[in-house]
Amino acid sequence: MSFLLALAAVAASPAAPKPAAALSPGEIVAASPASDWQAISPDDLLVMDLAPDAKGKPRRVVIQLMPEPFSQGWVGNLRKLAAAHWWDGLTVYRVQDNWVSQWGDADGEDKAKAKPLPSGLEQVPQSRYVVRPEGPERSATHEQLDTWLASMEGTHGAWHALTHKGTAIKDADPYADETFFYRGWPLAASRDGPSAWPVHCYASIGVARDAPPDTGTAAELYAAIGHAPRQLDRNLAVVGRVIEGIQHLSSLPRGPAPMGVYGDPAERTPILSLHPAREVPDLPRYELLSTESESFRSYAQASANHREPFYVQPAGGIDICNLKVPVRQRK
Amino acid sequence: MSFLLALAAVAASPAAPKPAAALSPGEIVAASPASDWQAISPDDLLVMDLAPDAKGKPRRVVIQLMPEPFSQGWVGNLRKLAAAHWWDGLTVYRVQDNWVSQWGDADGEDKAKAKPLPSGLEQVPQSRYVVRPEGPERSATHEQLDTWLASMEGTHGAWHALTHKGTAIKDADPYADETFFYRGWPLAASRDGPSAWPVHCYASIGVARDAPPDTGTAAELYAAIGHAPRQLDRNLAVVGRVIEGIQHLSSLPRGPAPMGVYGDPAERTPILSLHPAREVPDLPRYELLSTESESFRSYAQASANHREPFYVQPAGGIDICNLKVPVRQRK
Repeated sequence: MSFLLALAAVAASPAAPKPAAALSPGEIVAASPASDWQAISPDDLLVMDLAPDAKGKPRRVVIQLMPEPFSQGWVGNLRKLAAAHWWDGLTVYRVQDNWVSQWGDADGEDKAKAKPLPSGLEQVPQSRYVVRPEGPERSATHEQLDTWLASMEGTHGAWHALTHKGTAIKDADPYADETFFYRGWPLAASRDGPSAWPVHCYASIGVARDAPPDTGTAAELYAAIGHAPRQLDRNLAVVGRVIEGIQHLSSLPRGPAPMGVYGDPAERTPILSLHPAREVPDLPRYELLSTESESFRSYAQASANHREPFYVQPAGGIDICNLKVPVRQRK
Repeated sequence: MSFLLALAAVAASPAAPKPAAALSPGEIVAASPASDWQAISPDDLLVMDLAPDAKGKPRRVVIQLMPEPFSQGWVGNLRKLAAAHWWDGLTVYRVQDNWVSQWGDADGEDKAKAKPLPSGLEQVPQSRYVVRPEGPERSATHEQLDTWLASMEGTHGAWHALTHKGTAIKDADPYADETFFYRGWPLAASRDGPSAWPVHCYASIGVARDAPPDTGTAAELYAAIGHAPRQLDRNLAVVGRVIEGIQHLSSLPRGPAPMGVYGDPAERTPILSLHPAREVPDLPRYELLSTESESFRSYAQASANHREPFYVQPAGGIDICNLKVPVRQRK
């Protein structure tokens, strides 16, 4: 056996780290087969058009809604509000650096001025911040937690495999016992309960609320525009994410008042419309790289261990919010 | 013993988690004694004034330099470049969403147009991306790593204590064996080597480079403006952080070309000056909350386990980049 062949044999061993393949995560995504991509139904998309910027350029934000069974009470409210065009004419009234951009009714706290909400919105209880298996609450072992998570449709995928089968991604999260992907979404889970929940990453959309945890209707929404605010997980409902146009929310001038509120109403950014994607005939079709695909597995490996020439030290791990699920316009 | 006294005794036990004190991290910082704050020497600060914004408002960015022994070759170059006013008249020429804003000589890659660098800049080798104890390279146990880190001046502080003495902060990081604070800075360490290094968090400043890892002079700099790009740790040198004015870099329009480069030079943001703080007599004095203080320990505990009324579920942990070291203007 030649020296080169011997090396190849070592590299092919499942326990050995991959050889220097030199493909970047982006190159892996670009080379992935069409069969590894899943169409995003327009039924699960909303379109928010902000007023054009100072140079007259349009500012379109495309929002994907959280799938069942997570946050569905609030997602239902959000669908009703969008169908009613409730946000049209309202504003982005708060932009706090490294935190959130928030939109809705800037005068909502003044009952005399507040815009009336459509009827039929659900008051969602605190218990819905997480999803639990049926049966009494209990503390699960890691194995029991994994068995439950694996029983959810769409979790049999790449992340679990990556972090549990001796591959080269370090599995560590300070906020949860597990992190994983579920039908293209980043989730976390705890053995205590057990329970699972969607996490706050960059571009996640959540439901603002007052102090009582059941007071968020989804009329006031925020997008995370800085380092992932994971401390909000299980305290506020994640209902979606921006899949295109997050820069129109993240590059807005920061509000000078506490919490990033604009003191002068003229500084707010008007919302021309926020409505279901089905009402926007010229909207492109979108697709995401299936988090259960082999391509996603390779993408995650390369993201946790960059081996392209620029990098001299692979990290050995990655946090769930740093592994962005690739989304693109369908050709 | 009354019931209340019994509760107090439990609360005072060092092993027990703190009772629901209901103070937010910000309130703990505001209530901290003056003795827990450390002045930041103006010798370790640079001031970058960008051209005023569209409304004529000034845009000042205050930069704190990384302390010894980390990244000092590049920090020395940075000091020389700032003393020479090398950046004055150059631009912020690249802003990529959820990634970096980068400044320096936009024409630097064209040798005919490149602005000459001052003499005496050091070519810093790849080995300086980390700091190692003296002696041969070896793999350390967790205990040996801790002993070495504890021997560094300024690491005996709150973070180590928090994560290693049974307190209520989960210690988990996918990128390193340890994370801790060193003289007010977030660091990570590996048993392999062993080695320690500064980490890329929001508002960290790093040295851009070409593919060979010793090609960064510090003339081209970037600030992280999104989720912490920890995969850059040990691949690019962290030389400082923005302690005031990061919003002037994070809210700039994103460049439309690949990598966030502005296609039209008119879209770049001019740098009026980037120079040592000693040249700015009206600059406020700054101070940071000592990461070795009892106040920082309380702040970290409250940040990892929010118990103020708004929160219904404490996280139980926090990642090193989500625990921002408080910095304020000195009164």
